[in-house]
Amino acid sequence: MPHISSKGQSMPESPIRKLVPYSELAYKAGKKVYHLNIGQPDIKTPEVAIEAIKNADIETLAYSRSEGSETYRLKIADYYKKNNINVSHNDIIVTTGGSEALLFAFGSIMDSDDEIIIPEPFYANYNGFSKASGINIVPVISKIEDNFALPPIDAFEALITPKTKAILICNPGNPTGYLYSKEEIKKLAAIVKKHDLYLIADEVYREFVYDNNTFYSIMQEAGLEDHAIMIDSVSKRYSMCGARIGYLVSRNKTFIQTALKFAQARLSPPTLAQIAGEAALDTPQSYFTEVIEEYVLRRNTLITELEKIDNVKVANPNGAFYCIAELPVKNADDFARWLLEHFDVDGETVMVAPAAGFYSTPGVGLNQIRIAYVLNNDSLKKAVNILKEALKVYQD
Amino acid sequence: MPHISSKGQSMPESPIRKLVPYSELAYKAGKKVYHLNIGQPDIKTPEVAIEAIKNADIETLAYSRSEGSETYRLKIADYYKKNNINVSHNDIIVTTGGSEALLFAFGSIMDSDDEIIIPEPFYANYNGFSKASGINIVPVISKIEDNFALPPIDAFEALITPKTKAILICNPGNPTGYLYSKEEIKKLAAIVKKHDLYLIADEVYREFVYDNNTFYSIMQEAGLEDHAIMIDSVSKRYSMCGARIGYLVSRNKTFIQTALKFAQARLSPPTLAQIAGEAALDTPQSYFTEVIEEYVLRRNTLITELEKIDNVKVANPNGAFYCIAELPVKNADDFARWLLEHFDVDGETVMVAPAAGFYSTPGVGLNQIRIAYVLNNDSLKKAVNILKEALKVYQD
Repeated sequence: MPHISSKGQSMPESPIRKLVPYSELAYKAGKKVYHLNIGQPDIKTPEVAIEAIKNADIETLAYSRSEGSETYRLKIADYYKKNNINVSHNDIIVTTGGSEALLFAFGSIMDSDDEIIIPEPFYANYNGFSKASGINIVPVISKIEDNFALPPIDAFEALITPKTKAILICNPGNPTGYLYSKEEIKKLAAIVKKHDLYLIADEVYREFVYDNNTFYSIMQEAGLEDHAIMIDSVSKRYSMCGARIGYLVSRNKTFIQTALKFAQARLSPPTLAQIAGEAALDTPQSYFTEVIEEYVLRRNTLITELEKIDNVKVANPNGAFYCIAELPVKNADDFARWLLEHFDVDGETVMVAPAAGFYSTPGVGLNQIRIAYVLNNDSLKKAVNILKEALKVYQD
Repeated sequence: MPHISSKGQSMPESPIRKLVPYSELAYKAGKKVYHLNIGQPDIKTPEVAIEAIKNADIETLAYSRSEGSETYRLKIADYYKKNNINVSHNDIIVTTGGSEALLFAFGSIMDSDDEIIIPEPFYANYNGFSKASGINIVPVISKIEDNFALPPIDAFEALITPKTKAILICNPGNPTGYLYSKEEIKKLAAIVKKHDLYLIADEVYREFVYDNNTFYSIMQEAGLEDHAIMIDSVSKRYSMCGARIGYLVSRNKTFIQTALKFAQARLSPPTLAQIAGEAALDTPQSYFTEVIEEYVLRRNTLITELEKIDNVKVANPNGAFYCIAELPVKNADDFARWLLEHFDVDGETVMVAPAAGFYSTPGVGLNQIRIAYVLNNDSLKKAVNILKEALKVYQD
């Protein structure tokens, strides 16, 4: 039997996917399962994107340019300008999802055993991308008591070594829903300039900002031209997760030229999805207004209902569509499995994502879950009620 | 200015793309350029695939399963059964192009500085994928005099070290067009079993086999279940390069489970392209018959015309749609640039891929070019005539 790599052996299993066999048990038992565990919104894709695919006149489905088609990148640059980010289409590489944008960024700036500092909890797949890239994540713990705000900047500084090449944030945050303030971005800007690091910001949820807050991108921060790398994606913005289209954006020309070599090796991003993505940029503002209203309604329902449950602590998210809740259980992993295997209210149960997989520090977040509010308001209410009833009877 | 990784700095530029600025000069000068340099066929995508996209009833363009949709994988397994390869849908991961299948395979079986043996010349992007994965290619030179047949098996054996984890072949070969015989596959099978290595075969051109030859897949070889990893792709088979759909296939369950963790980290392959890919499996046999006839015609024209040129040596390809030609020039790179910048016949010139980029041994293949016969017969004749006229006047 030939060799499996250490890299392959240490690749983490997704904290969401590892519960799938238990959800299958629940389905087999005839239960209805409310999925609060995944970031797949139920929102419809804008019609303009779907229509563009149906109307595309394709004879040969050919490669596009490795960096994405020029017309698309020009339109993306326009989109950013409207969002107070002044970039040229040459600062943009279209990637196969935000995932690939991150992999290209990691590959371009980090060698084997280099380090990247990330506030945790963080998007679980950052673990997978760092393993795949042979690099190490150095976590800085942010706390539910602080609503997962940026940890003190000296907590970052204490972790910087010669191997540190970048700081990565997700803003607004998955899984925290936390929106970084302009002041927090400025603090990060100062430290990456001081230590000559990159600041990578995963801004795929930029559109999902609530309560009259203003989103401040790292790309708006002056003086950060050589340091700032933005990761973006059409997945959540236009509810087209299956397109697999993301963007890698930076004004650092050496970085972009390097990332382009990774892009050229894999030839091109998906052509059909680029047609949909380009058309999606014409989505009317009314679509976003409705979507944001819907998410605010859901967020409010979720937080209000969770706060009614005894001994549940919940952060108050200002963006994205996730929140972290701390439960009166010892191990949320066991609890999540038990919900699927052994519990129901009138034949219905709920699937949540145990939050430990969103931390890289072992033993942290064991009593936390991530909830994605990607279900309609009525379903959310029912799902939280199931959680409430479950916690009444669950024995650790 | 922050750090660019050694990995990023050493990522090779594509041997094809680095000529693009010179082709742009040719266009600016008003020249018509015959593109023999790229593997983008002019063949139409099967209608059944295009229609499936137009008729797809999509409200939310959602993620698929990380391993690809189940209905698609079941149909792929059927396709393989018809091709004498008995695999289950659970042995298949749908990937974002053959490129991603290779990256998952490299990540699953090799750590930093591990080695893979590849007969050269080989598909140039293997260089990029190996750099991106932090591994090293150890080349075995195959020769134009031998039509690029498998080098003697002891040439492989001499290169095996404790760091060697796999042998990789492309069959039929890009850029050689060489089709490995059953006997050659059996020799490779014996050596990977003896040294407990993987045998990876990039079989994306399996359908393009000429002159009544029979294609023999590594997946048909008994006893290789734990060793054989097949890379496949819809790109060339159905002329849908822009779909970005490939397959990673192995009966080694530990390997597939490991690769699946890489697949889960990037969530899913493109959903729209999977719809097209699944429908493409219903392409009528008449499509392939016509396409193969067309390629045989082109191949015959190309070889016949090239052989008429003094001092040009050309291998005779039995598969794929590439051939390597040795030219009476010192440096094919300079010649290819000169063709674009300084030469034309009645306002027309030709773009070829210098073959040095398909070797990893420095200084080898400097007088060779790769020609892709992806143009119609008339254009091919004109293009080869331009080469002929150019060689009459070109001064090294």
